[in-house]
Amino acid sequence: MKAEIISIGTELLLGETIDTNSNYLAQELPEIGIDLLWTTQVGDNFERIIDIFHNAIQRSDIIFVTGGLGPTEDDITRETVANALDEQLTLDKKQEKQLRNFFAKRKREFPEKNIKQATIIKSAKFLDNPIGTAPGWWIKKDSFEIILMPGPPSEMKKMWQEQIKPSLIKNSNSVLIKKTIKTSTLGESNINQMVEKFLHYKNPSVGIYVKKDGVNLRIAAKAKNKTAAMNLIKPVEKQLKKILKEYIWGKDDEKYGEIILKDMIRKNLTLGIIESVTGGKISDEITNFDHSSKYFKGSLIAYDQTVKIFSGLDPKLLKKEGTIAATTTKMLAKNAKKIFKSDLGLAITGVAGSKTVEKHKSGTLFISITNGKKYLNKEMIISGDRMQIKNRAVFLAFALINEFMSKNDLK
Amino acid sequence: MKAEIISIGTELLLGETIDTNSNYLAQELPEIGIDLLWTTQVGDNFERIIDIFHNAIQRSDIIFVTGGLGPTEDDITRETVANALDEQLTLDKKQEKQLRNFFAKRKREFPEKNIKQATIIKSAKFLDNPIGTAPGWWIKKDSFEIILMPGPPSEMKKMWQEQIKPSLIKNSNSVLIKKTIKTSTLGESNINQMVEKFLHYKNPSVGIYVKKDGVNLRIAAKAKNKTAAMNLIKPVEKQLKKILKEYIWGKDDEKYGEIILKDMIRKNLTLGIIESVTGGKISDEITNFDHSSKYFKGSLIAYDQTVKIFSGLDPKLLKKEGTIAATTTKMLAKNAKKIFKSDLGLAITGVAGSKTVEKHKSGTLFISITNGKKYLNKEMIISGDRMQIKNRAVFLAFALINEFMSKNDLK
Repeated sequence: MKAEIISIGTELLLGETIDTNSNYLAQELPEIGIDLLWTTQVGDNFERIIDIFHNAIQRSDIIFVTGGLGPTEDDITRETVANALDEQLTLDKKQEKQLRNFFAKRKREFPEKNIKQATIIKSAKFLDNPIGTAPGWWIKKDSFEIILMPGPPSEMKKMWQEQIKPSLIKNSNSVLIKKTIKTSTLGESNINQMVEKFLHYKNPSVGIYVKKDGVNLRIAAKAKNKTAAMNLIKPVEKQLKKILKEYIWGKDDEKYGEIILKDMIRKNLTLGIIESVTGGKISDEITNFDHSSKYFKGSLIAYDQTVKIFSGLDPKLLKKEGTIAATTTKMLAKNAKKIFKSDLGLAITGVAGSKTVEKHKSGTLFISITNGKKYLNKEMIISGDRMQIKNRAVFLAFALINEFMSKNDLK
Repeated sequence: MKAEIISIGTELLLGETIDTNSNYLAQELPEIGIDLLWTTQVGDNFERIIDIFHNAIQRSDIIFVTGGLGPTEDDITRETVANALDEQLTLDKKQEKQLRNFFAKRKREFPEKNIKQATIIKSAKFLDNPIGTAPGWWIKKDSFEIILMPGPPSEMKKMWQEQIKPSLIKNSNSVLIKKTIKTSTLGESNINQMVEKFLHYKNPSVGIYVKKDGVNLRIAAKAKNKTAAMNLIKPVEKQLKKILKEYIWGKDDEKYGEIILKDMIRKNLTLGIIESVTGGKISDEITNFDHSSKYFKGSLIAYDQTVKIFSGLDPKLLKKEGTIAATTTKMLAKNAKKIFKSDLGLAITGVAGSKTVEKHKSGTLFISITNGKKYLNKEMIISGDRMQIKNRAVFLAFALINEFMSKNDLK
């Protein structure tokens, strides 16, 4: 089934809004066996939109349209579709009532210009919009279908997930299922070497993607239904997991901070941190998830030398070793555990700026973790600008926590 | 001048990559007086790309193309353009030499399949790519121009900024210049009321945009050159600045953290922080800029009650007032200054999760700043999920620092 997406709105062509709707739908369509072949963005212009509809009807079996369903004069998606299909817009009394109710319930006066949101053409059926005033349309005609959805992403996604997707799945005769394996520590070329033979597979296919959270492997299988696709994926997934075992930290949509959090709660462990080079980013990432207060005790952002001393570090050691050093970082990890009365103490020092500090090049990192008895320490030099170094340092710290927890029986 | 953008690459249609190139160019084009009327994404498919080129040549004066210039078999932008224009691809000896040098300089063997990156058609001229192997093309033919750029955003942007944009500006007879005023503290509807009459202006036009860093006002003027456009903008900018004075924190691409940083360095002030609800995000944002260590002394992420006590807070006060309270936050600000031996102490407490804590609803925030003598304290309830509350809390904290510094002579 050939599909295309049309996004309508002048703001897209002025670069004021990025078309995340198309990206979202593009990710969803393979799963229901629909091949997306084109996406187009066009402004609120009558002739140009009609041209695009004419073209789309010729080449596509199903056309997904977002935007231009609002109540203002600029919103002309309904009018242009009606024109392109040579049909008349008529007011639907039932929909009008529903629309007036929407406003009444919210104690807002009904603006008469909104009435056009209750108009429709013969070949279309309304799609309910429980969180906005613009209903969608599902047009079935001749050899094609056109689905109109509202532009605001939350309304579009809700309509898609609850009404459009389930209906498309019911009529689908093939699906594409994806599974992602998320790794850290190793680089792209190392992973490439380790899994090379899989990269030539056709179904399931295996791809390597470098993302912000490390190197991801994606296994994708096409089959007549979800179960059949999963049966293709499973053996390959198992083999890949065996090869990459110790470097895997998560799967699919998982976030590293959340994985660590869940693991710590399961193991009933608490964490205290002293960060310098990452400037608070590790703590920030950790506290992005519910229940983080259950295991995260606190952290000290030791950005100035005096703060490192305040954290309990021997000034003599600091003078001898420097603030960015393996021994210093190890001591800071120990002190983090002490200060925050936590089971584990984590510390990170390094250079995020572009200039050399204490003879250490930009990108130098020292990370240590301890439970008071055992230590795990890493040092490395990574590349990038200040933000990239900070981001990667956070993931390397998570990787170290992960490694430490998986290697040690900590309680 | 009618323009369109064509982005080529199957990864765009699978939703694996979001087409940021189009969004970037869409923002750039108005500035040089070019009207973008369509953008299209298409996969690496010979027939479909050619169709799109045929269509584009009919309707547009200038066509910007990104992607598909790599060395692999999937990269067929050159081949499809040649076919659509009925021209022959030939190898350019000079370009071949340059390409081989690119590899030699980097001590990498030249992969023979890369040779196709040195091919070109008669109506095109090469655009240099100093950071990649794919040169661009600038085609001038009949009544249209086609500009091919590499897909990787860093290569595309460099080529655009250094070669394409300057050349287009030279031939442009109108420009659109934008100036942005960035505000904090007030909401969209308040700002709307204050500047309502400006919103009906045509040239320059004034628009209100709610962004992650607050409510932004954008003044845009169209004129025959930059000076003329700036002359239209200036009086309106001046009036808006007068009305919004105390709520303005920055302009154009400025980041709040950086503004605070520069202001502190200028005033020779240092800062210490105790964060709870924001979990390290304030410190993280502050340390995203060079020289942040000059004024940022450090911070304590007091996530657990015992940490708040450790920070020097009287346990009795904590018991009486609670960990999330105006008095507690004020004391924490005082302690932040003390612990970090800084000129200013900032503290923030509140509820980022969805559940009520100590009778405080989700979104409750207390923020205090002090120089030891004077205090500025704010309390408020904001809405959103955990991430949104954290993000907004950071900007509200910056706004408080800004207000405190502008109101007080601090040294």
